[in-house]
Amino acid sequence: MSDSEILLHVTRGTLIESAHRGHIAVSDRTGRIFYSAGDPRKVIYARSSMKPIQALPIIESGAADVYGFTPEEIALLCASHNGEEPHTDAAASMLHKLGLPCSCLQCGPHAPFDAAAADKLAAAGTAPTELHNNCSGKHAGMLALSLRLGAPTDHYMEPGHPVQQLMIRKVSEMSGVPVSQLVLGTDGCGVPVFGLPLHRLAAAYADLGARSMDRTGAQGQAAGRILDALRAHPFQIAGSGRYDTRLIEVTSGRLVGKMGAEGVFTVTYPERELGLALKIEDGTQRAIYPAVTEALVQLGWLEAGEAEALAGFHKPVLHNWKGTPVGEILPVFMLKKQEPPQI
Amino acid sequence: MSDSEILLHVTRGTLIESAHRGHIAVSDRTGRIFYSAGDPRKVIYARSSMKPIQALPIIESGAADVYGFTPEEIALLCASHNGEEPHTDAAASMLHKLGLPCSCLQCGPHAPFDAAAADKLAAAGTAPTELHNNCSGKHAGMLALSLRLGAPTDHYMEPGHPVQQLMIRKVSEMSGVPVSQLVLGTDGCGVPVFGLPLHRLAAAYADLGARSMDRTGAQGQAAGRILDALRAHPFQIAGSGRYDTRLIEVTSGRLVGKMGAEGVFTVTYPERELGLALKIEDGTQRAIYPAVTEALVQLGWLEAGEAEALAGFHKPVLHNWKGTPVGEILPVFMLKKQEPPQI
Repeated sequence: MSDSEILLHVTRGTLIESAHRGHIAVSDRTGRIFYSAGDPRKVIYARSSMKPIQALPIIESGAADVYGFTPEEIALLCASHNGEEPHTDAAASMLHKLGLPCSCLQCGPHAPFDAAAADKLAAAGTAPTELHNNCSGKHAGMLALSLRLGAPTDHYMEPGHPVQQLMIRKVSEMSGVPVSQLVLGTDGCGVPVFGLPLHRLAAAYADLGARSMDRTGAQGQAAGRILDALRAHPFQIAGSGRYDTRLIEVTSGRLVGKMGAEGVFTVTYPERELGLALKIEDGTQRAIYPAVTEALVQLGWLEAGEAEALAGFHKPVLHNWKGTPVGEILPVFMLKKQEPPQI
Repeated sequence: MSDSEILLHVTRGTLIESAHRGHIAVSDRTGRIFYSAGDPRKVIYARSSMKPIQALPIIESGAADVYGFTPEEIALLCASHNGEEPHTDAAASMLHKLGLPCSCLQCGPHAPFDAAAADKLAAAGTAPTELHNNCSGKHAGMLALSLRLGAPTDHYMEPGHPVQQLMIRKVSEMSGVPVSQLVLGTDGCGVPVFGLPLHRLAAAYADLGARSMDRTGAQGQAAGRILDALRAHPFQIAGSGRYDTRLIEVTSGRLVGKMGAEGVFTVTYPERELGLALKIEDGTQRAIYPAVTEALVQLGWLEAGEAEALAGFHKPVLHNWKGTPVGEILPVFMLKKQEPPQI
């Protein structure tokens, strides 16, 4: 097992003030590694980057159709959203269609990630609700799946619940990791999270993209509908100023990516049936976007003009409280090409 | 030069989800290294951990006495404060004594670090001012020093200004690093920050403590007054729920420490004439306090009961949005004892 690798320098004046290490894997749906940095087999928690995979059973089971979820709402299944109005409106609409009150969402409340939305709530003296939780779409989807499966809606977060059992099997199927080898932890929003080798997370994203291209059967249809929903409504996956939203917008949906807490990011490139997964060793969010964008540039996955449109994420300039530039975050790694296996 | 070392694991369930690396140096005032982790000679920016050193010329020059600064206000010179009322009141009082308006503080405004104070401002629809900037005490002190030196007050942040020139010479004197070898950058609040080897920052803290013990001359008197002010008013250095404040409270001032942005912490142990300096490689604040507390435990600098009183900082339990424990931050390093030099 190789060690983590320095991916980014954080400069201030003439000095490298801080550095972020991490791991990157680029794989096809079989898990074959095409490019890497650090240890592409590092076992990591996918955190929220698994949401688009977890959206699959909600479509495949028919739950999304039975309850009439719109594309905006299907996109919200995959979101770690900002808690802006389009997000909370969609989550509220999903609950309304399910005939369930907001209190059935077991994710807990937190202030909107979006500062303007949070300030607006605070100024109104209104406490945030479960709808503002960045995971509210996923939880609404899990409630829909509970109802569809005829399972109780009050313990849908527990690993033994039929909803989570279905999620576990789907993650295993897409990543190629046997159920018995998936490491389960608890996410910030209470549901199980999945620990697996980084290249297997990349494989799940390659598989999602590949299925969306051939659209064969319920699985292919579901993959296609999820990616189409995100392409049509990229705001729903994150929101104002967020990378996940901009990546879809800037590439016109050729690439779809999803962040996860503790420094995780995943990308699917459906046309090439490849997936990318990244883990920042220290879990810092500021390191995700420069590292992912640099990887996409090195891979040639961004076309002319697209890297420029993401420049503010790629090599962000750091400012002091008065707005004067004081430093930068700079990618410093080179992806390693893996030789094809000898036959 | 040795590399950084893993200081902490961040666990979730059964997996190590993230890790933080860093460097630690424990030195006497000559810069001799007694204990270390990672590379104790790593060149780092001290950031706000330099504030107690930078407070020295404000006392030694007579500025603090000419303008009648109280111990609460002297303590605020050293602060990266929470923007709570005792902090903003002290900063406002200092400006009043100087006969200068708040707008003379060139640190820029930012919302109080303390969430309750920030919410209170937001709920009142009041914009934060320069007084809320965590550095407002230091900046008020620099204005006092400008007036005392008969220098203009409008460019006190520039490296060539007499105030900053005095700061640079003081940092050089305390750390033992020649002025020509100090690396200058720009801090979040606009003034110069100092880049120097980590063990030299520890040496400056050892020197501060040693001077405070003998109290010889203007320099010893100033060092003693600064540490006494922090011991009498530990709330001023940081505020509610903050480690810097608690460390002084818990040790009854036997140890005095100061955080800096991008993962820096410094401690002085005056009775032993030793200093400690720490840098988290990735700059993450959450990693500072577990690493420092563990180092203090290994050094035997905390007495029975004191480590327990700091337990929430030492091995913090991580919770999800609903308050359920999901993981921990755990120190995993052992300080290396340096052999005494052969004579």
